[in-house]
Amino acid sequence: MLHLNDLRVRDLGECRHDSPLAEMLAVKQTSPHYVAEGDRVLLEDTVSMLAEHDLPPVEVPSFEAAGPRRKIFFDPTEVTAGVVTCGGLCPGLNNVIRGLVQELVVHYRAKRILGFQHGLRGLTADHRDDTVELTVNGVRDIHTSGGTILGSSRGGQDADEMVDTLVYRGIDMLFVIGGDGGMRAATAISDAVRARGLDIAVIGVPKTIDNDLPFTDQSFGFQSAFARATEFISAVAVEAAASPNGVGIVKLMGRHSGFIASYAALAASAADMVLIPEVPFALEGDDGVLAYVEQHVRTKGYIVIVLAEGAGQDLLDGAGLPPRDGRATDASGNVRLGNIEERLKEAITDHLTSVGLAPTIRYIDPSYAIRSIAANAYDSVYCLRLAHAAVHAAMAGRTASAVARWRRRFVHVPLSLMTSRRNQIDPNGDMWLSVLETTCQPADFGPVSDREKAVSAGFC
Amino acid sequence: MLHLNDLRVRDLGECRHDSPLAEMLAVKQTSPHYVAEGDRVLLEDTVSMLAEHDLPPVEVPSFEAAGPRRKIFFDPTEVTAGVVTCGGLCPGLNNVIRGLVQELVVHYRAKRILGFQHGLRGLTADHRDDTVELTVNGVRDIHTSGGTILGSSRGGQDADEMVDTLVYRGIDMLFVIGGDGGMRAATAISDAVRARGLDIAVIGVPKTIDNDLPFTDQSFGFQSAFARATEFISAVAVEAAASPNGVGIVKLMGRHSGFIASYAALAASAADMVLIPEVPFALEGDDGVLAYVEQHVRTKGYIVIVLAEGAGQDLLDGAGLPPRDGRATDASGNVRLGNIEERLKEAITDHLTSVGLAPTIRYIDPSYAIRSIAANAYDSVYCLRLAHAAVHAAMAGRTASAVARWRRRFVHVPLSLMTSRRNQIDPNGDMWLSVLETTCQPADFGPVSDREKAVSAGFC
Amino acid sequence: MLHLNDLRVRDLGECRHDSPLAEMLAVKQTSPHYVAEGDRVLLEDTVSMLAEHDLPPVEVPSFEAAGPRRKIFFDPTEVTAGVVTCGGLCPGLNNVIRGLVQELVVHYRAKRILGFQHGLRGLTADHRDDTVELTVNGVRDIHTSGGTILGSSRGGQDADEMVDTLVYRGIDMLFVIGGDGGMRAATAISDAVRARGLDIAVIGVPKTIDNDLPFTDQSFGFQSAFARATEFISAVAVEAAASPNGVGIVKLMGRHSGFIASYAALAASAADMVLIPEVPFALEGDDGVLAYVEQHVRTKGYIVIVLAEGAGQDLLDGAGLPPRDGRATDASGNVRLGNIEERLKEAITDHLTSVGLAPTIRYIDPSYAIRSIAANAYDSVYCLRLAHAAVHAAMAGRTASAVARWRRRFVHVPLSLMTSRRNQIDPNGDMWLSVLETTCQPADFGPVSDREKAVSAGFC
Amino acid sequence: MLHLNDLRVRDLGECRHDSPLAEMLAVKQTSPHYVAEGDRVLLEDTVSMLAEHDLPPVEVPSFEAAGPRRKIFFDPTEVTAGVVTCGGLCPGLNNVIRGLVQELVVHYRAKRILGFQHGLRGLTADHRDDTVELTVNGVRDIHTSGGTILGSSRGGQDADEMVDTLVYRGIDMLFVIGGDGGMRAATAISDAVRARGLDIAVIGVPKTIDNDLPFTDQSFGFQSAFARATEFISAVAVEAAASPNGVGIVKLMGRHSGFIASYAALAASAADMVLIPEVPFALEGDDGVLAYVEQHVRTKGYIVIVLAEGAGQDLLDGAGLPPRDGRATDASGNVRLGNIEERLKEAITDHLTSVGLAPTIRYIDPSYAIRSIAANAYDSVYCLRLAHAAVHAAMAGRTASAVARWRRRFVHVPLSLMTSRRNQIDPNGDMWLSVLETTCQPADFGPVSDREKAVSAGFC
Repeated sequence: MLHLNDLRVRDLGECRHDSPLAEMLAVKQTSPHYVAEGDRVLLEDTVSMLAEHDLPPVEVPSFEAAGPRRKIFFDPTEVTAGVVTCGGLCPGLNNVIRGLVQELVVHYRAKRILGFQHGLRGLTADHRDDTVELTVNGVRDIHTSGGTILGSSRGGQDADEMVDTLVYRGIDMLFVIGGDGGMRAATAISDAVRARGLDIAVIGVPKTIDNDLPFTDQSFGFQSAFARATEFISAVAVEAAASPNGVGIVKLMGRHSGFIASYAALAASAADMVLIPEVPFALEGDDGVLAYVEQHVRTKGYIVIVLAEGAGQDLLDGAGLPPRDGRATDASGNVRLGNIEERLKEAITDHLTSVGLAPTIRYIDPSYAIRSIAANAYDSVYCLRLAHAAVHAAMAGRTASAVARWRRRFVHVPLSLMTSRRNQIDPNGDMWLSVLETTCQPADFGPVSDREKAVSAGFC
Repeated sequence: MLHLNDLRVRDLGECRHDSPLAEMLAVKQTSPHYVAEGDRVLLEDTVSMLAEHDLPPVEVPSFEAAGPRRKIFFDPTEVTAGVVTCGGLCPGLNNVIRGLVQELVVHYRAKRILGFQHGLRGLTADHRDDTVELTVNGVRDIHTSGGTILGSSRGGQDADEMVDTLVYRGIDMLFVIGGDGGMRAATAISDAVRARGLDIAVIGVPKTIDNDLPFTDQSFGFQSAFARATEFISAVAVEAAASPNGVGIVKLMGRHSGFIASYAALAASAADMVLIPEVPFALEGDDGVLAYVEQHVRTKGYIVIVLAEGAGQDLLDGAGLPPRDGRATDASGNVRLGNIEERLKEAITDHLTSVGLAPTIRYIDPSYAIRSIAANAYDSVYCLRLAHAAVHAAMAGRTASAVARWRRRFVHVPLSLMTSRRNQIDPNGDMWLSVLETTCQPADFGPVSDREKAVSAGFC
Repeated sequence: MLHLNDLRVRDLGECRHDSPLAEMLAVKQTSPHYVAEGDRVLLEDTVSMLAEHDLPPVEVPSFEAAGPRRKIFFDPTEVTAGVVTCGGLCPGLNNVIRGLVQELVVHYRAKRILGFQHGLRGLTADHRDDTVELTVNGVRDIHTSGGTILGSSRGGQDADEMVDTLVYRGIDMLFVIGGDGGMRAATAISDAVRARGLDIAVIGVPKTIDNDLPFTDQSFGFQSAFARATEFISAVAVEAAASPNGVGIVKLMGRHSGFIASYAALAASAADMVLIPEVPFALEGDDGVLAYVEQHVRTKGYIVIVLAEGAGQDLLDGAGLPPRDGRATDASGNVRLGNIEERLKEAITDHLTSVGLAPTIRYIDPSYAIRSIAANAYDSVYCLRLAHAAVHAAMAGRTASAVARWRRRFVHVPLSLMTSRRNQIDPNGDMWLSVLETTCQPADFGPVSDREKAVSAGFC
Repeated sequence: MLHLNDLRVRDLGECRHDSPLAEMLAVKQTSPHYVAEGDRVLLEDTVSMLAEHDLPPVEVPSFEAAGPRRKIFFDPTEVTAGVVTCGGLCPGLNNVIRGLVQELVVHYRAKRILGFQHGLRGLTADHRDDTVELTVNGVRDIHTSGGTILGSSRGGQDADEMVDTLVYRGIDMLFVIGGDGGMRAATAISDAVRARGLDIAVIGVPKTIDNDLPFTDQSFGFQSAFARATEFISAVAVEAAASPNGVGIVKLMGRHSGFIASYAALAASAADMVLIPEVPFALEGDDGVLAYVEQHVRTKGYIVIVLAEGAGQDLLDGAGLPPRDGRATDASGNVRLGNIEERLKEAITDHLTSVGLAPTIRYIDPSYAIRSIAANAYDSVYCLRLAHAAVHAAMAGRTASAVARWRRRFVHVPLSLMTSRRNQIDPNGDMWLSVLETTCQPADFGPVSDREKAVSAGFC
């Protein structure tokens, strides 16, 4: 056994200085993502490996590992597979489609692959004949383009009607690439399939540009997305810096989770403030966002704000702002968000003008320009391997399950789990701490005096 | 407890078809990286979390988690820190330097940070006064450039002389950013520090563009590097495709490990053959590389080969090729490699010419153009957080340890472990399987008849 | 003399077929930018070279060539120069600043260079002490960032107050990098300087991201800008193609001139319709934009529209849309434009919904993300040479003049000329013809029957 | 008439200071590209426009303007066109092919378009049946890839055999996209066509990544190429700067002309020395390259050298270095060049080692990675318009002519002229002066004392 434990050359008792971060840490002691002195990270990540270290055969929460099996459920050469992409665009959709076709054809010699068009709409009776034949030649270069060659759409459809379509088109396995809505629909289809006693495998490939699906290290396309997002932070930073009292605001995706905003802000390192759904904030007051903006503009000449679209929704209720078109949810069943950007722009303009710093606002919402790009090199590899895992899962008879990556291993996750909760930034975790350290924004928009010290250190 | 186990809707006994991959899988049954039916991936990754699930308090191999501690060893405001970068360039060096300075200054208010120049040479008596003062303003934008503002060099130095320098310059903590050689030197320095009973922390930040250091999910700069490498695969693919009997060869970094070659080949998906150190190959014979190249050029008109620099070194002994300048090791003590690219170009030219397919060789070695780029968005975030972890470790009195990322957690790894073995591509693992599936090259350059089937499937 | 004229091997009389473009050409016969059979392009471009070909010494319209003179007006080592950047951002501003400093310091050894901050505001009495000292070290790497290190602003200032500042700060030569407003201000300053009999040279470096200044081959930053713009056309194209009845709209800069929209549309080749200020269009009617959008969405599934911000302003009067804040001009004196994008989105949504094709609108306004990028390689070279020419001009005693590029030669243009008219796309010229050929949109939104033919040809 | 002449506000006699550039200018007084006080650049560029200014109808050297004619020679719907790409790769080849097909099909409704494969080899009897049918759908997206979908090759073929192929395949118009060799072949084909009295139009689209063809503002692909080249200059600069006594050398294309080297050096602004074929240099001696390299490494720590492949060929004769394989010319008839890079690396290593500055050489030859990229936005537009012009020319019965861009107008140039001389950097022109100013290298590697002053100014 490797000696991994003899790290410390000094007794912990010798650590007699209070960390300047101690106060911040005190708050965080309950966080499972935060380090306690006794925390240890396992070397091995699989149950069978633990057994090699004479661990008793206890039951620990774990996932089935993904990958090819020696015995499979379907006769591969007789398989007709279906593919559908649902919901908003995300880098890597075409890579996943291509990876599915590659694995199905090159290794399993599947008989036929049909692509349903424009999301679940393509599984309705009206559109069930509008499928695209997916061939190796047809998908060879599609990964160099963003978007999805199958088209997409929001909106659920009747599960039984969709199963009718699967039967009508002779589908043996259906791959649903989608987000919340897509995973819920895949679950419903799978339930209906089971109710009818059909042998149709339903495999989900979770897609979320926001990285808000659980049980996934990082969702495909996320790295491409936040990399692209950094360009827009840099853009508004350049604009803001060049303008008298410049206020740059970039609104990024993130309905419930601020991952894109946080990662992009760290990568671009031009952001002075990051506002995300997980961390509430006040606009008004000595400790509020507006006071901090004012101080920053006064000191540094400008400020750059990264705003996740779902941030500060509680501020809109009070302000009485209605959702954009009166409907409370969109076609996918997602709660519609209020326009926090309008509220913020207005509040900043009013406040800065009132203190004699009439601002130049530089606002951009680059969402479409981010969602639509092709996957970067990392996501290209990731999507390919994820698609391979999805095919292996279906061939081996798994169904009602999603393929995901957990602790860098590809695993099978029950579909129902994928929508059971959200992946979010832990306000007490190290990721958000890094954001605070990099932007120098206060953890809770606290007393100005502290902030001034941070600003005066120069990085902020 | 989450129900993670109710995945399969069918009995495994129903899996009655042999997988077309079964033969390949048979070989792989001993691989820990390959999936067995009983494999399960743990949900939790820390020992304390396992305990929450009523696991008995057994000793499992694990690492100390990295991160800030409430009590620290040094009085932070009295700290003088030293930073040095060693060995070959790698994307992210400046990001790490910047992250160290940021954390030391903004949060710990360290007194002073000195950068030693041109690697360990900067710690010798001759150069100990040539340090650069590292300030927040000085490092603000350095992450937008590749390379290292401190310079680098290969070559070990006398440990005692280096410790003399640390004492002479009043260094309390030394951050060594380096590879194999750097980690060995850091260990030697740490040993000498301990022998003298000094309170100087030595923290390693492992750097390897080849991704060949162990106990690290993926080394910093690796993603930037392989992403850039894909451009050169695409370039020689374009050149080869446009030439009669075109043979495109791109030589990529990878002295002992074919990670860059493999990942880049997957991401670019233009590679027809990947040759890496971990997988031996024959040139001659019906099953050899040359026969496959011939078949490919004949069928498809051209071929694209990705060659890791350390691949096929065994082929050079027989051919009697001496190392480039007669010395067996370089200044860092690394074994010098023979010119596999010359051997390969010559052999292919001779072979193809002899069969009437006189080739157009398009060869490129883009190493300097890869090593020297700035970190991409992902690596920027990674380097920043890694640097923060390194500072936390030193402040908390850890020494002789490296900061690394394991299963997506930042951890402390004893320095001695970092050089105890290499991280390599598992020829029986799923990564290499994906490469084989994507390139369609034979697992072992086996019988041509099989290969022809693969090629005829169209992807290959 | 070169024989340039013996091109045609056949008598023109042999050209007996009507061109399918003849009808289009008939309209264009009056255009100076369009080719007539007798048109010939001069080999030489300078008057002195014409003379070598025995041309009589006639007076033809021509510009003074830019470049260094042997005898100069100022004692270069005594010169204090001032630099100011005005108006909206444009790629290359920092390159020009850097080029000015480089030439002034390295070759002319000028004594001092002052940068005035935030545009002409920096020349007011209130801000005249807020200058930045421009040194070689300070500007070394500024060209790698977009924006302007000097800041910018809109708005004219009192000429006499600005001349007071020049005198107060001892400025011998002022370089004004700016657009319409900047050139007008430079003219006013120059007039005031002349009125006082001062020896202060005022040199304009024309800046217009829209490429709408006259007497300039192409304004600096323009190529960087339209290259970046293509990415957003591709983005909305990906979005539109993936949506049922997708309508992608990208709004690009171009208040009076559609150069960015036209060049970007040609380069991206994903645009189905380009709307620019120079070419009026109707929304309604059988030949209108809406009917064409409907036909396109019906046939192809989606449409991609590139919209210059100044297009279709006449449509807003009728609709009674007021300018955004009730003021008719902005701080630079530019006429404020109405929101053509809102009008267009609304009209398309209403129309398509009414014909049962309820659209998914994907709209983006990427202006800030375009203006703020760093100059590309071409513009980097261009800006550097333009700045060199500006310094040569000032040193040689030129004033009230701009440096520009005409027929690929750097020239001096009287400042007053730069604002005398606009550069615009000639609706009868070959550039717009290429746009029509590439998008397949009708020249005048004419009869649908013709359009259907074009669409059926496949490119459109 | 515009008043373009009232620029100067002072009498030239007031220019009483000698320019610090005077000595340099004295040398240059004979250069037609350098400015004399009397030089004037024409406003208008066409003969007919001169006439509008009452110029007498004299004969001046001029080109026929390109563009669509009202009457054309061929019945467009009966036309079969051929396309061939010759010689080395260059960004934009696919754009030109695509533009030809677009114009031929969409507007002229040509009957058929055949692509000959792998250059002129495709026109031989052996390969005349291997053509590719070029359709609108087939070429729709080819411009997003570098290279040429038709393949290419070097080497001339028998003109009569090629004309036989044209007759055999029923070609009415042949478009030859190629360089020196391609233009010569096109001329030979055209002569043979004329000798047989055939009505086959032969139109050249000049291609030269080196920008060395005459009568062309800038050849297509050149801007893409030098933009890409800048990345490699930056790469070796990063490498050199990080190494003790680092010497970065990037070898760029440019057999006879240093355009890529010069433009890339200006754009990257990291180059300390540019060596091009047009400007001879000595290695040895107080004024030689080696002494300058030594001084630079001693002062600045490293040096970055941009080397055009054809530079310093005279130095190889003396050194007795033979061409690489004993043959004096390549398959295209180009003179084979010696390995200046080996000579330079060896000489620098020897020299620096001898003076105690043993260097770290960082050398890269990125040619294939430059030639193979897709055209950038500018070149995409340029290629499209050039291709349109080529089709218009052929349809109008022009033959034995190339389409080119002259003073920003598309023109017809007799094929014979395209190979009559080379386009080269004028060592006395403003472009090279800008290179000297930016690199601070001596104009002729003159006295070290001067250079030191330049270096001390800081930019150098």
